[in-house]
Amino acid sequence: MPRLILVRHGQSQWNLENRFTGWWDVDLTEKGEGEARAAGALLKEKGILPTVAFTSVQTRAIRTLHLALETAGRVWIPEYKDWHLNERHYGGLTGLDKAETAAKHGDEQVKIWRRSFDVPPPVLEDGSEFDLKQDARYAGIDIPSTESLKLTIERVLPYYESAIAPQLAKGETVIVAAHGNSLRALVKHLSNISDADILNLEIPTGQPIVYELDDNLNALERYYLSER
Amino acid sequence: MPRLILVRHGQSQWNLENRFTGWWDVDLTEKGEGEARAAGALLKEKGILPTVAFTSVQTRAIRTLHLALETAGRVWIPEYKDWHLNERHYGGLTGLDKAETAAKHGDEQVKIWRRSFDVPPPVLEDGSEFDLKQDARYAGIDIPSTESLKLTIERVLPYYESAIAPQLAKGETVIVAAHGNSLRALVKHLSNISDADILNLEIPTGQPIVYELDDNLNALERYYLSER
Repeated sequence: MPRLILVRHGQSQWNLENRFTGWWDVDLTEKGEGEARAAGALLKEKGILPTVAFTSVQTRAIRTLHLALETAGRVWIPEYKDWHLNERHYGGLTGLDKAETAAKHGDEQVKIWRRSFDVPPPVLEDGSEFDLKQDARYAGIDIPSTESLKLTIERVLPYYESAIAPQLAKGETVIVAAHGNSLRALVKHLSNISDADILNLEIPTGQPIVYELDDNLNALERYYLSER
Repeated sequence: MPRLILVRHGQSQWNLENRFTGWWDVDLTEKGEGEARAAGALLKEKGILPTVAFTSVQTRAIRTLHLALETAGRVWIPEYKDWHLNERHYGGLTGLDKAETAAKHGDEQVKIWRRSFDVPPPVLEDGSEFDLKQDARYAGIDIPSTESLKLTIERVLPYYESAIAPQLAKGETVIVAAHGNSLRALVKHLSNISDADILNLEIPTGQPIVYELDDNLNALERYYLSER
């Protein structure tokens, strides 16, 4: 039976500093590396061994995948990296400390940006130090200047359908190492969660979530691997 | 112009113990990890930045690739892992300490196995603790029971032609992180080295070798990146 394992990357430097990160490329902290290894140890212990891997093009997710696979003894499985699995782009909030943002824009406004399904934050301005136009990994890609959760989902799901679902349909055990919001997109789809409710669903870092699927890729069960 | 970077994995646990390794999966030592990171630092310093990566399905080569790419800031490039790039299979010598082997088979015989182009070592016997038939990464693959350098080349080159050369033909900067003998196969082909001479060519660990190629993928130049 097809099986899908979701792992949110461990703590990054900017998680630690409480800054909006989005598409900015920040590495894991030592704690984050430990979370990734613990996820891999759990996969090994429970015998839930991935056969194909997907991740974003962001270092923190890729390294989470690599560390987890190393610990699980599975670093040799095929691995696909794609920007469609990137974190939500936080636009002009990128790099801002969350307290700073509240001081600048007001608590209410920040709550709207963080908690609204379809209101994107202000765009990232031209010339910002967080502009990614010169980053070789995005050459030829129409980089968003900001994204709501809705926009994030609208690029994650077509990638799921075209790249990930075919692997599941072949019966593979697929691991996706990605980000809070790109994983929300997958959980919303597979667990049929409403636009309103998905905002309240927190995906914990470094905790493998397992979906058991039927042959039509409908979810039979979703569970935290640590609880089995 | 197409460019090919070859990196032999850094020191592994069995390099350190002077044991024949071949297809057995052994991890890097701390020294080996350092060699891999140094290779990546050199790529970054010299501005020779890979755009596509190939490696074997053996942990020591994959981790060399990952550590080098992390240090070079390129962990996000596409990456292909394939058993055709594995080390030469040492058959019944697998796991033996090199001094033990000489004591058991005689110095002359060992020299023949190590230095002959087309005489393979004895086969790995059924029931050996180093048998890989149960290893999931080789499911569906006709695992060799021993290989000469000639046999190794005969599986590396078709893979080069079908998978690596098309990337080079597109103008990519390709990195191949692999093993002493699978890299010898590539150097023999690209530098037109005779069967007799290839045996004397030592590929140093963790030292990026760069090929500058013309549009027909003929080698214009081969150099150690550390010497530029």
